[in-house]
Amino acid sequence: MANYKLTIEYDGTNFKGWQVQGKGERTVQGEIVQAYQKVFREKIKLIGSGRTDTGVHALGQVANFHTEIDRPPEDIRNALNATLADDVVILRVNRVADSFHAQYAAKRKTYRYIILNRELPSPTRRWGMAQISSALDVEAMKSAAKAFVGTRDFKSFTSNNRSNQGKSTTRTVYDLRVVRRGAQIHIDITADGFLYKMVRNIVGLLIEVGQGRCSKSHILKVLRDKDRRAAGVAAKAHGLYLLKVKY
Amino acid sequence: MANYKLTIEYDGTNFKGWQVQGKGERTVQGEIVQAYQKVFREKIKLIGSGRTDTGVHALGQVANFHTEIDRPPEDIRNALNATLADDVVILRVNRVADSFHAQYAAKRKTYRYIILNRELPSPTRRWGMAQISSALDVEAMKSAAKAFVGTRDFKSFTSNNRSNQGKSTTRTVYDLRVVRRGAQIHIDITADGFLYKMVRNIVGLLIEVGQGRCSKSHILKVLRDKDRRAAGVAAKAHGLYLLKVKY
Repeated sequence: MANYKLTIEYDGTNFKGWQVQGKGERTVQGEIVQAYQKVFREKIKLIGSGRTDTGVHALGQVANFHTEIDRPPEDIRNALNATLADDVVILRVNRVADSFHAQYAAKRKTYRYIILNRELPSPTRRWGMAQISSALDVEAMKSAAKAFVGTRDFKSFTSNNRSNQGKSTTRTVYDLRVVRRGAQIHIDITADGFLYKMVRNIVGLLIEVGQGRCSKSHILKVLRDKDRRAAGVAAKAHGLYLLKVKY
Repeated sequence: MANYKLTIEYDGTNFKGWQVQGKGERTVQGEIVQAYQKVFREKIKLIGSGRTDTGVHALGQVANFHTEIDRPPEDIRNALNATLADDVVILRVNRVADSFHAQYAAKRKTYRYIILNRELPSPTRRWGMAQISSALDVEAMKSAAKAFVGTRDFKSFTSNNRSNQGKSTTRTVYDLRVVRRGAQIHIDITADGFLYKMVRNIVGLLIEVGQGRCSKSHILKVLRDKDRRAAGVAAKAHGLYLLKVKY
């Protein structure tokens, strides 16, 4: 038996997210499983490091699958890439220990949110950045970002979907950086794991801080309240990238 | 009478270039003229700084038009942007002297070509960069680029289309820079004007230099030969951006 680890880049624009949903919904997981079946006549169970929502991109999503048939990793990569549509690319295939599990073995994940902070939208960058017209105060955002770093109960920053019920909402954020690069603002966040919509809810509040509509002390209050309704509006999906997963 | 100058950004992916062609072809010029007519009930003659080909993008294309009706530039900008599809944005509208002509008054134009130099294509950047798998020798490209700077007859670097016949093929290239930025290579070229397909033909040859398939002395020979067949294959349109036009 062999266990293969895939590192995957995708443009989330035309996907209903990572995870296979109902029939007819195009998902990244579904496309890869189908491509593998088409090429190798074998139905694999593909385990992702976690879900990404509709419209969210990935530069380094990780997944694994077991198979009875031992194949050179390079052959798997090339065959999948030749079959997949051009909005998904398998960057690497590695043979890993049988015990490796892309979800449970993940130690840290890093997401990047890209804001295009200028008055008008950009046609050439409209799929990969969220445009905000009002000039954001990046220094205020940097300062407020510190409130999220550490081990916190992020209950206020998730949506009450069924998969969360009864589970711990405590996560450790190792790093949260806000950097201006010309007209772009990059928000990079690394944690041991993320709750459903956690990144976009945090970014949504940081944008409000940048607009002067929310203070750092309000963020601390929202964290204390542990109530989703206390947080603001989630930032849009198309500015978000799963950058990497560390094992 | 008023003369208005527009600065325009567009994603060339779904356009048959700038210039109005036959009926039914979607062009940037055509879309702007239609949008203006829809909003202001007036058919303008829109003069671009020059054409861009199918698939070529622009961050700063410039155009102008005359009209009998004096309107605040801001109103024109906002009305056009509210009407245009999201792959064209009017960045600025300025009232200019009646004599201003976007094509004839252009002194310099700068184009950027973006190469993604990595083994595999990138799904998230597939519309805006041309991916080249083989590792390019950027130092060799930088050195070869110098051969193009100055006043030269670029006849070898254009295609023999009808609009060129009998016209001078001499142009002055002021600057040609090749810069590596991580996995990307940016080629910025500034000249007093460009012949049809000139940028893409120059970039095509520079890519061959980077691949070790062409030398600087070969470039000098191609320039001397003044024969289109001597140059290589034009680089693909989707990596090319009209950055700015200077007046």
